[in-house]
Amino acid sequence: MKKVYVGMAAIIEKDDEFLVLKRSPKKDFEPEAWETVTGRLEKDESPVEGVLREVMEETSLEVEVVMPLDTGFFYRGGKEFPMVFIAYYCRYLKGEVKITWEHTEFKWISLSEALEMPELKYFHLMFKNLEKLKRYLPKDFRYSFSPPVYT
Amino acid sequence: MKKVYVGMAAIIEKDDEFLVLKRSPKKDFEPEAWETVTGRLEKDESPVEGVLREVMEETSLEVEVVMPLDTGFFYRGGKEFPMVFIAYYCRYLKGEVKITWEHTEFKWISLSEALEMPELKYFHLMFKNLEKLKRYLPKDFRYSFSPPVYT
Repeated sequence: MKKVYVGMAAIIEKDDEFLVLKRSPKKDFEPEAWETVTGRLEKDESPVEGVLREVMEETSLEVEVVMPLDTGFFYRGGKEFPMVFIAYYCRYLKGEVKITWEHTEFKWISLSEALEMPELKYFHLMFKNLEKLKRYLPKDFRYSFSPPVYT
Repeated sequence: MKKVYVGMAAIIEKDDEFLVLKRSPKKDFEPEAWETVTGRLEKDESPVEGVLREVMEETSLEVEVVMPLDTGFFYRGGKEFPMVFIAYYCRYLKGEVKITWEHTEFKWISLSEALEMPELKYFHLMFKNLEKLKRYLPKDFRYSFSPPVYT
């Protein structure tokens, strides 16, 4: 049996646009890369709680989680850092974007712009799955997630 | 930062029915409970690879992963065993069910039967999300998942 780190990504939509941010040159991993909000499980919490926390910490935005868009595995830096990630489609609820030391810039872009940004290559499959879903699902569609159990 | 175990569940569909299995009385956790196929990440592998492996090991079935249906957090037994889980909707491709020592019985049931089985209570939200999705998505809908990166 294997213990791993768990990372989350948030594809945040507001008025048909999506939030992308540029990682600070001070980051140890992938400095200056464009990305969506990402973060890691920091304590005993569900990935949905974790992604809501990270979105709030990194952008000050309140969002709701619609559904997962992708899952995967990679080494964050080295083999001693095995990481499972889950990417979530999130819907903007309220707030103004305030970035932190982790990012130097942000912008809202369309889905087709996201798919044309080579810097977002690790996020392209998530956006493609979202593009397919949006052909069929109603605007207010949303999963119910199992609540975390802490006993 | 937190390392956790990762568990996967597979909601396997074949001809509008879903596979459920009864856990063996020999299991340390939840003996004799009805469940879907479940398993854990056992090595450096993506959750999608892991769930395909577990389905093959526990049922001998070949399936494809359609999309995630739920994610969550619980303690498997005790606090020293924090577990993140990801449930996947899987589509039957081929094979005959062969169960192992881990299960004593299996059956194929309808979605509404699954929602009426109190023993499946931990799986009800997954089935409910699936029920909602099936109202909108075409029969052959399927995500593309990011391939695992082992370098």
